[in-house]
Formats: sequence, C-alpha cells, structure tokens
Amino acid sequence: MRGCYVALEGVEGAGKSTVGRAVAARLRKRGFDVVEVREPGGTPLGEEIRRLLLHADEMTPWAEAMLFAAQRAQLVAEVVAPALEDGAWVVSDRSYYSSLAYQGDARGLGVEAVRKVNEYAVGGVVPDLVVVLDVDPGRGLARQGDVDRIGGQGLEFQRRVAEAYHRLAEAEPSRVVVVTADAGPDELAEQVVALAEARCG
Amino acid sequence: MRGCYVALEGVEGAGKSTVGRAVAARLRKRGFDVVEVREPGGTPLGEEIRRLLLHADEMTPWAEAMLFAAQRAQLVAEVVAPALEDGAWVVSDRSYYSSLAYQGDARGLGVEAVRKVNEYAVGGVVPDLVVVLDVDPGRGLARQGDVDRIGGQGLEFQRRVAEAYHRLAEAEPSRVVVVTADAGPDELAEQVVALAEARCG
Repeated sequence: MRGCYVALEGVEGAGKSTVGRAVAARLRKRGFDVVEVREPGGTPLGEEIRRLLLHADEMTPWAEAMLFAAQRAQLVAEVVAPALEDGAWVVSDRSYYSSLAYQGDARGLGVEAVRKVNEYAVGGVVPDLVVVLDVDPGRGLARQGDVDRIGGQGLEFQRRVAEAYHRLAEAEPSRVVVVTADAGPDELAEQVVALAEARCG
Repeated sequence: MRGCYVALEGVEGAGKSTVGRAVAARLRKRGFDVVEVREPGGTPLGEEIRRLLLHADEMTPWAEAMLFAAQRAQLVAEVVAPALEDGAWVVSDRSYYSSLAYQGDARGLGVEAVRKVNEYAVGGVVPDLVVVLDVDPGRGLARQGDVDRIGGQGLEFQRRVAEAYHRLAEAEPSRVVVVTADAGPDELAEQVVALAEARCG
C-alpha cells in the first residue's frame, strides 16, 4: 500500500518543525514507518541549494522559485517517492505549497505559473494533506530563531504569505486545511494525525 | 535601440568560448558595446549554481534543468536584459537552447516542457540568433579540457545532444543556424557576425 504524504506549512515561526516532530512520533507509536523531510533540503544537493536560498545576497524571484523547484525535484525523486512506494508516511516541513504561497502569490510570480513549474519538478508526487499552521505573522516573526534571507523580508511580506495560504485552502479545501496554531505541539499533532487518517486511511 | 543577443551553442569541445571571444572582439572593433556572458554562471549566484551543476554527485534530470533555469533567470535579469536595453550586443557562451538540447531532448524531459520552464525563467528575453557550432561529437570530446559532470556523460550522450541541436535548427530556422565548425575561430567569428547583422541589423 502506498504511504501518506503530509506537509506542514505556514509563515516563519509557525511551529512547523516542532509540530512535525510530534506528528512523526505519534505515527511511529502507532507502528507506522515514518520518514521526516524538510524543504529546502533533505538531500546532499538540496542542502547545498538550501544554503544558497537562505544566504545568497541577490536573487530574482524566478531564480528563487527555480532553486526551490530544483531541490524539490531531487528530494521527491530520491526520498519522498521511494518512501511512499515502500508504504511509509512522509512528514514534510514545507512542500510544493510553500512555493505557491511565497513565490507564486506573495512574490507575485503567479500561483499557476509556479504550480506548472513545480508539477514538472515533482512529477505528480504532491502531498496528500497540507496542514497550514496559522499564527499571527507578527507573533511568528518574533518566535523565529536565526533570521535568514527569506525570514528577513519583514512583517508585510509575512502577512502576504499568511493570506496566500488562506487562498490556497479556499481553492483546494479537500487537500489544504488551515489549523489555528494556538494549542501546544502535541495537541496540534493529534489534529494533524486525525486529518491525515481521514485523508489517507 | 535594443541590442542584439547572440548565443553560441554546441556539444562539449565545439569551440564556443574561443569563437565567442573572437565574435566579441570583431564587434568591438566595429564600435559596438559588447557584453560577454557564459552559462551556467555569469553572476555571483550563477557561479555558485555552476559549481553545483558541474561537480555535484547526484542529480535528477529535473533538478538539473531547474538549476540551469535558476542561473538563467538571474543572468538574464541582472546582466542580459539591462545590456540589451542599453543597446549593447550580448555574446553568450550557451543559452536557453542548451537546456532544450541537453535536458529537453538528450535527457528526455521533453523540449516543450523545458521550454515552458525556461520561458518563465527568462520572461521573453531569448537570443535573437543561436549559432550551433557543429563538430563531430567524438572530436569535440577529445578536444575538451577538464571533464565535468555533464561533459563526462560520454560519446553516446554527446551524439544525442548534437542531433538535438539539428532538430532545434530545423524547427526554428530563422533563429537557430548550424555552422560547420571546421574553420578557424576568426573565420567562424566572421560568419557569426554576418548572420547576426542579418538577423538584428
């Protein structure tokens, strides 16, 4: 049986990686094989691209979008697709949908253009469930640790990203779900697992 | 007046960079402003991506195509488009058409898919003239200096690339011209300049 591909999304500081670890732990307790990945990154090539994305000085929006698509092509082919074929769950800190929200919508490249490019990159391997952890963008920025190039875009940009996620959820309600991220990570993880079982079970 | 964007293409060892320098010198003698660029590379970000493209170990064809598109987006926005707007000639060692030949055709991703991705990357700034320097792929490989990841794909791959360029020229005869590269660089440069003046003059 094919596994289930769950992506956590949200603005900087929304708690994606903490909740992702809690989701993975909860699934493992139930006896599932779980592969945790993060974007950008997750492969040797992807980690090199991550470094460029987070720390390069100058980058046009399309160069940025193409770099995200490149690391995603590698991650999906090398890690995500084989794990799903083996029946594992994949819990991903960010996905395809980050590019739709950040580069497509908030940077203004166009959601459909960015979707087209990423469809080529991932060859149909898209998350079964996308959970957007919804926090106030100002609170998220304040919670952020080291500030990188993308996190350093400021509050106005984060607000555009937050709105973009809401639009994506309205457009694809069966796949993209917004969850208010006020609860603690364990409670949020329980919600994510329940949503994923409903979607993939 | 908008300048003229001339790209030199061909398999490894075809003499693109030598002929490119001779073309630029000839145009400068005639009083034109000339900007020379190379792909992958040509910007700080692009040179970092070049290093990944030529020396990374593992890369899927789409990851490779997206990295080429990323460096191209940056190069076109930062260097090529401003130069053309200033009325300069741009002489490019490789272009968009390398991706069509290598990733689209020879790697089998599909020329139209790779074209679509690169159209987003360059936003309509495509070469006015593409000159394919046609050498026997075996002779080209033998002439190659340091062998990188892409040049190290072997003769069979180089043959597929050479055939791909011929197909691109048949499909777009007004833009893509195959020139037999038996002559010396100066004579070839003269041919390239004559073709470019006919195209852009």
